[in-house]
Order: sequence, then structure tokens, then C-alpha cells
Amino acid sequence: MDIPFLQLNESNRPFRQEMTEAACRVIESGWYLNGPEKDRFERELAEFCHSTSAAVAVSNGLDALRLIFRALIETGRLRCGDEVIVPANTYIASILPVIEMGLKPVAVEPSEKDFNLDPVRIEEALTERTRAVLVVHLYGYPCWDAAIMQRLRDRGLLILEDNAQAIGAIASSEGFNGTAMTGNLGDAAAFSFYPTKNLGALGDAGAVITPHADIRDCVAALANYGSDRRYHNIYRGYNCRMDELQASFLRIKLRHLDAETAARNAIARIYDAAIKNPEVKRPTFFTDRTVVWHQYPIHTARRDELRKYLASRGIGTDIHYATPPHLQPCMKGVFSEHLPITERLALQEISLPIANISPIQAETIATIINEFK
Amino acid sequence: MDIPFLQLNESNRPFRQEMTEAACRVIESGWYLNGPEKDRFERELAEFCHSTSAAVAVSNGLDALRLIFRALIETGRLRCGDEVIVPANTYIASILPVIEMGLKPVAVEPSEKDFNLDPVRIEEALTERTRAVLVVHLYGYPCWDAAIMQRLRDRGLLILEDNAQAIGAIASSEGFNGTAMTGNLGDAAAFSFYPTKNLGALGDAGAVITPHADIRDCVAALANYGSDRRYHNIYRGYNCRMDELQASFLRIKLRHLDAETAARNAIARIYDAAIKNPEVKRPTFFTDRTVVWHQYPIHTARRDELRKYLASRGIGTDIHYATPPHLQPCMKGVFSEHLPITERLALQEISLPIANISPIQAETIATIINEFK
Repeated sequence: MDIPFLQLNESNRPFRQEMTEAACRVIESGWYLNGPEKDRFERELAEFCHSTSAAVAVSNGLDALRLIFRALIETGRLRCGDEVIVPANTYIASILPVIEMGLKPVAVEPSEKDFNLDPVRIEEALTERTRAVLVVHLYGYPCWDAAIMQRLRDRGLLILEDNAQAIGAIASSEGFNGTAMTGNLGDAAAFSFYPTKNLGALGDAGAVITPHADIRDCVAALANYGSDRRYHNIYRGYNCRMDELQASFLRIKLRHLDAETAARNAIARIYDAAIKNPEVKRPTFFTDRTVVWHQYPIHTARRDELRKYLASRGIGTDIHYATPPHLQPCMKGVFSEHLPITERLALQEISLPIANISPIQAETIATIINEFK
Repeated sequence: MDIPFLQLNESNRPFRQEMTEAACRVIESGWYLNGPEKDRFERELAEFCHSTSAAVAVSNGLDALRLIFRALIETGRLRCGDEVIVPANTYIASILPVIEMGLKPVAVEPSEKDFNLDPVRIEEALTERTRAVLVVHLYGYPCWDAAIMQRLRDRGLLILEDNAQAIGAIASSEGFNGTAMTGNLGDAAAFSFYPTKNLGALGDAGAVITPHADIRDCVAALANYGSDRRYHNIYRGYNCRMDELQASFLRIKLRHLDAETAARNAIARIYDAAIKNPEVKRPTFFTDRTVVWHQYPIHTARRDELRKYLASRGIGTDIHYATPPHLQPCMKGVFSEHLPITERLALQEISLPIANISPIQAETIATIINEFK
């Protein structure tokens, strides 16, 4: 029995032939940046996410958020010092760009039901300086309460999504853009195609989707040195480009993403049905929305023991995330919020293998967990 | 007669087989970031540049500079508001990171001899707030006057290099690190491997070389979310990683860089000898240093006419750079310096084809230029 947590060579094995051909095509083309593969991927990603305006392909998910916040400032929607509500229970990359752009992150605790930013708590955290809310669809689970989001929008707040983990997920009700698909619910969304993601590149890559043409144009210019045309810099920009190779790989994998998601979801359903150890809390998400399982998180008070036990039986696991952002050394002095739920979850979470394992392997893992005493 | 300014598919044709094999190897490996190709490239690049400490491979040349300036702040060497001397005659990417990091760029005019930051003028631009000098080795020509640089260093200034265009060039005298090779002369150097560079990736890529271990460690952490180990963030970092694919391509091309440089230099020597039109000023660089020709810049008062004439004869050219940084829309209010030399050069420069053309083609181009009346 040897089930690693994740083997990217296995994840990519089915696409190896197609990706090798794409690599040859791009290598021979002589066109490595801002070319046809990127253009096509931008359109295909938008279509996948039910967006009527093209995506902007960028360098990675962190940069996608940096570009969104900078564009919101450039287009006059945000100002230095504005407060942005962020989930306390997330990866630090969701929060770093908020601080980098001179905005003030206000961390809000998760719901214990789905580990995501608790919409009910958002309204309690509002101040007169709150100007935006960043929801993170953690583990592939849509964080969207339409009634609350509408109330926040009616107050003039921007609604932003970190969709790094939930491409293809569907909320329980529509967002503001005529679709319930994550990544196209609010004013702008960041995507990550880090290799371990459900749609994973073979390196870093990311994207931005927004229904606002001025934000889109601004993000695209900022990502290319701030230039609206060659050697004409209207913004003090960055270099945040997705290259043609990564775009060509992502185009291939996007065509297979629904099947990949279905396979992950099938494994999750086996875990749901088969894990019965009373010491282990399975995720018990709402059933009114379509999850795309990025991680399968279980929680237990005996986390380190269980991880060690699973490792001794050849089962790899991971933790998402062992240290919450507000407790990282670099965040000293940033947050004054009391965040006990986030801190407890960080001590109890284990992510089980979810990608590229067979139903039988999932059942075996469940059985081994059930035998943990 | 049809000689495009640059054809990247031709540039990469000799390496196509090797690069395709490398792509297959990386695709199959399952290791796409922070892996063995990057580690090896970091060592091989350092060795090539006569550096005793490993390079840090990063996402692109702009990010290399961002990381350097941020690391200089984090390690206590620079503070917000400090003045940094920069060349007025450069690409805007050299200057954007200075401003982004809260430092004040002070633009200094070039020498008309080599178009680079004029070392003599640096000392005139010093104020009590000057803390660093960024030299850009433009067009592949080393910008280094050892006596002046030593005096600046003795005053406590940091000496930084933008080596995006000059990998492998050799200054007329040693820098501070026991070698005269650009990229290892001062306190830190940024490299760009943009596809058109002498060492060009198949997408964006860059690197940092520094003799200071603390700057190196800081740059490496900042480029990886600010983490010194997994999920432990000591800085508020970025995502600026070079992926394994680009590292594998650069390793191949680095082995052939000396030959590539020799071929470019041979074309430049033909232009030097054969272009005789009195309306055209050839570059007349100092002969005491080893240039790696990245661009072959000629200057003429009738620039647009000559470009049009060359285009009508099938000869592609480019301009580096049509609009100097201080005149870009995004730089309004940043510079108060009077920069007439830079502005004149920007009106007169034409870059001739230098990569992947044959000696006969270079002679033909020279003849056509000589026939321009």
C-alpha cells in the first residue's frame, strides 16, 4: 500500500502526448509571449466560466489578485487605506496583495460548516471604511450567499473572488453577472493554475475574469509593463504574463477539466460514504451547490497522530493550512482580530488524497481511517 | 531581399531538438517548479558569470529588479525615500521597480559615446539622500568605470547592475567581486531572459546574482511568497518563480551562449567596417572592454526616412527606445531633470538586425545603408 498525497506526473500522464505536441508547436513557432495560444486560452477560459468578456491570462494566482487590486485603485474604485474583508482561513497569497497595494485587510472567521468565510460574519465586520469583500472558494467549495452579497453590493461594496481552488464550481444562486459559476459572480475574480490545482499548468500561471471592461483593460495593461500599446506606458506596470507554452498546456487540460472534476468528486463521495470514525469529522457541505473537490479536508483533534498513522500505512496527506495567515511571522501587527475558529481548524485539518487515485484506493483509505483508534 | 529584424524561430532552430527533449523530460517528471532544473541553472549561470555564490532564478528581469530593491530594503540597506541614480536612456522596466519600492529615481544622462549612463555625470547628481546607483549595460555594452565606481562605493553607495542586455560582457577593469564580468561587478545584478535576449527563454524568465548571502536568501524567499520554508512566511513576499521548463531551456542555450555571442559580434564587426554613410553614426564604443552585441544601434537625424527606406528594401529594424522613460505618460511628475541627450538619442536611434543573419546579409544591409541619400 503506497498512496502518495499527489503525484503530478500521474495527473498529467493522460495529456502527455498532447502536451508534448503543443510544446513542439510553440517551440517551432517562435512566438513565446502575447501570442495566439494565450488569446485562445483567454477566450476558452471565459467561455468555460460563462463570462461574456474574455479573461486576462497572467503569470500566477497571486499576481492575478495584485493586478485586480491595483486596477481597482487605478480605475478609482479603491483608495489607499480602504478596508477589504478577507477570510481568516485561507492561504496567505489571498491576503498579501491586499497589503501590498496599501489596503487594509480585515480578517473574518469561517463557518465551521464549510470552512469558508462566513457570510453572516461579514456584515458584523463592516466599518465605514470597508470598500470590498474578497471571498475565497476554499477547497473547491463556493462561498456565496446571494442575499448577503446583494446587500453588500447595495451598500456599494466591491465583491471579489479568489477562485484559485474552485474553477467550475456552481453557487446555490446566481451572482451579479447572470451565472452561478464561481469566477464570474462578482466584480472580478482571480484564478490560479499552479500545477497542483484542478486546472494545473506545468509551472505558474493565473488569470483574471471581470465583467467590467475598464478593469479588464487596466489589468491587461498592468500585466504588460503598464502599456496600452508597444513602448507606450500609461501605468507604472509590472511583468505578469502567461507564456504561450503554459497557455497551450492549459488549453489542452481545460478540455478535460469536467472529466477531471468528476473523477475528484467521485472520490469525495466515496470518502463521504465510507469514513465513519467518530474521531474524524468529514466535510458536511451544503448540498445546494456544486462543489469541485480541490482538497478533501477532514478534521480531528488527534491530527498529528492520525497523520503519522496514515503515513505508517503508506498514505500521504497534507495540511491546508498549518499556520493561518494572521499567525505568520510576516503578519505581525497586521491583524488585531480574535480568530479562534481559524486557529482551531489549522490544528485539526488533514487533506486526503483526492487526485488520481482509484475508487478502491479511496475505500482502502477510508477503511484504514475507520480502524484508527 | 527580406531580412526581418529578428526571427525567434530561427534563433531557436539550432536548439529545437534539445529543447523538445528537455520539454518531454520535464513534462514526464511531474516536477514543474523549484526543482532540479532550476537548481542546476542557478549554479551554471553563476559559474558562467564568475560568481562564487549561486544565482536566484526568477520570473523575469523586471521582477529581478523588484526583488533586489525589496531585499535591499528588508536587509536594512535602503529605506523608503532614498534616492537611486538610474540612466535616463534605458527601457522603462529598469526604473519601474525603483518607484514601486518607494525609492526615488534620479535620472542621469548618457555618454554620447556609448549611450550608457555617463559615470562622470553620476557624481554631479549625488545628493545627501543618494544611496544607490543602478547601471544598465545597454545594448550589451558594459557600463563600468572602476575608479568612479570605487569612489561611489567609498561614499557608502550600493552599486547595482541591470544586466538584461549584457550577459557575458567584460568591463575594462574589475568590479568589487574579483571579476570584470557584468552581472557580478557590484552589490547585486538583475538578468532578463526575455525571448529576444542574447540568452532568451521561451517565455519570461530572469535571475539575480549577488555576492551578499543575506540579499540572496532574501531574494529567494521573497520570490517564493516570502517563505524560508514551506508555509512559513517571514516576508510579505511575491510569486516570482522561474519554472522548470524555462530553466531546462536556458540550461541548453547557456551552453551555446559564447558561440551565439561570437556570431552577433562578427555581424557587428561587419557593420563597423562596412557602414560608411556620413549621415549615419555607427556606435564607436571603447575598445578596452568586451561587448556582447545585443543591439547594433546606429543614429541619424533622418531616422524615420532611413527606416522607411530600409523597410522598402525588405530590411526590418527596430527602435530602442522611441520614448524615454521620463516622457512616458505614467511618469508624469516623477522626473524634473532636463535630459536633452536622452531625448535626442530617442529620436535618432535605429537598431539593425544582429541575430541570425549571415555575414553576406550584414554586408548587403551596410551597402543599402551606404546608398541612402
